[in-house]
Amino acid sequence: MANQSLTIQNSLKEGERLDELHRNGYKIIQDKNRFCFGMDAVLLSGFAQVKQGEAVLDLGTGTGIIPILLEAKTRGRHFTGLEIQPDSADMARRSVAYNHLEEKIDIVTGDIKDASSIFGASSFDVITTNPPYMIGEHGLKNPDEAKAIARHEVLCTLEDVVRESAKLLRPKGRFYMVHRPFRLSEIFCCMTRYGIEPKRMKLVHPFVDKEPNMVLIEGLRGGNPRMTVEKPLIVYKGKGEYTDEIYDVYGY
Amino acid sequence: MANQSLTIQNSLKEGERLDELHRNGYKIIQDKNRFCFGMDAVLLSGFAQVKQGEAVLDLGTGTGIIPILLEAKTRGRHFTGLEIQPDSADMARRSVAYNHLEEKIDIVTGDIKDASSIFGASSFDVITTNPPYMIGEHGLKNPDEAKAIARHEVLCTLEDVVRESAKLLRPKGRFYMVHRPFRLSEIFCCMTRYGIEPKRMKLVHPFVDKEPNMVLIEGLRGGNPRMTVEKPLIVYKGKGEYTDEIYDVYGY
Repeated sequence: MANQSLTIQNSLKEGERLDELHRNGYKIIQDKNRFCFGMDAVLLSGFAQVKQGEAVLDLGTGTGIIPILLEAKTRGRHFTGLEIQPDSADMARRSVAYNHLEEKIDIVTGDIKDASSIFGASSFDVITTNPPYMIGEHGLKNPDEAKAIARHEVLCTLEDVVRESAKLLRPKGRFYMVHRPFRLSEIFCCMTRYGIEPKRMKLVHPFVDKEPNMVLIEGLRGGNPRMTVEKPLIVYKGKGEYTDEIYDVYGY
Repeated sequence: MANQSLTIQNSLKEGERLDELHRNGYKIIQDKNRFCFGMDAVLLSGFAQVKQGEAVLDLGTGTGIIPILLEAKTRGRHFTGLEIQPDSADMARRSVAYNHLEEKIDIVTGDIKDASSIFGASSFDVITTNPPYMIGEHGLKNPDEAKAIARHEVLCTLEDVVRESAKLLRPKGRFYMVHRPFRLSEIFCCMTRYGIEPKRMKLVHPFVDKEPNMVLIEGLRGGNPRMTVEKPLIVYKGKGEYTDEIYDVYGY
């Protein structure tokens, strides 16, 4: 324990903290001044299906939350996270090392727009992504800020993500994305245009009688046009009280 | 009353019955051996927004249920129902006459595929449609049967409906459709391809914890790509017990 504490001290930089993931004892390094993972990343890790032996790529991995959770939850063979911001990629790499996952998870610093050149065509069974939701730089004060890059389509667009995924997935490979419902039609049309057929969708509602604020989507490269809309995922059953499904995904 | 009873007797044919609509005292003629309106038509009439003075076309009107309900619920100027099956169109016309709505509702016998030639381009403010849901003739014993034509894409496809609607709507005209969720991605892509942007969607779930079995969609001819996914419509709160929202739409 003394050794481990020392490791933590060494791997944390100023402003960073170590958060519990409730899976395999894993922890993750975050910095509240940058971008901390949200419920969307956790829900995507519950929605995505990774089979034994599969190779997974997470586009725009940030702190590496999705590969780390998927490594804990699935029997995938290998996980790669691609991140354009060097500081975020560094944090993700240190989290991977802290959890002793260097053999299972690679964090690569690079641009989603170049992803198919970086990794090569048809090189993954599964792609996951929690991309920027907001269109362009609308309402942004500082487009260079780490949070802005994670939230707004400053450095890559929905189309970049889908186009690169279509190249990176092997035929019948699966694409998992969390996004905002207001872009649902755009998302479906973009996926279809690049040959990733939407096959499954789950809307996430804060309360049962409220509009959804997230959507989870599964696509199949080269799939046929028929899809399943699943029962909604409801986050709260009362004020501040999570539903059982949320506790389940979080692993409490 | 004696006179009215006489009128009913004269307008009903063998196998037909007169059903209460719970709106303005209106009734509708139906034949259980043909196609009786379902909850989908009623929900569409509650979802569609018709403003004062607008002209409305219902594509594939069947018994005329949607124009009759919209005439009762809205302040639209005029309603037209297009129906390819002469017997259904005749039934719809007799329902219109029974409710004394000849000045407000026209039932036209004709093919959806020719709708823009029949009525001319940009001739409606609003289009509603409860088209056949099922793809092709899959599983059909008799594709000529009235019910088959109403349920399966035997005589017209989703693309026919959307293409003709795009021609028939004036710029910024609104398109309202009820359909099955398994075709959601196809629907959005088809609408977008023909310039009717999906703007609003509501999923209908039999129970709160079940998959949706219907979807209500609003499109805007020439609209921008952003949409609202509304809170779900739940049909039953317990076994056989409708939710308040359903009672409200039905007008009980």
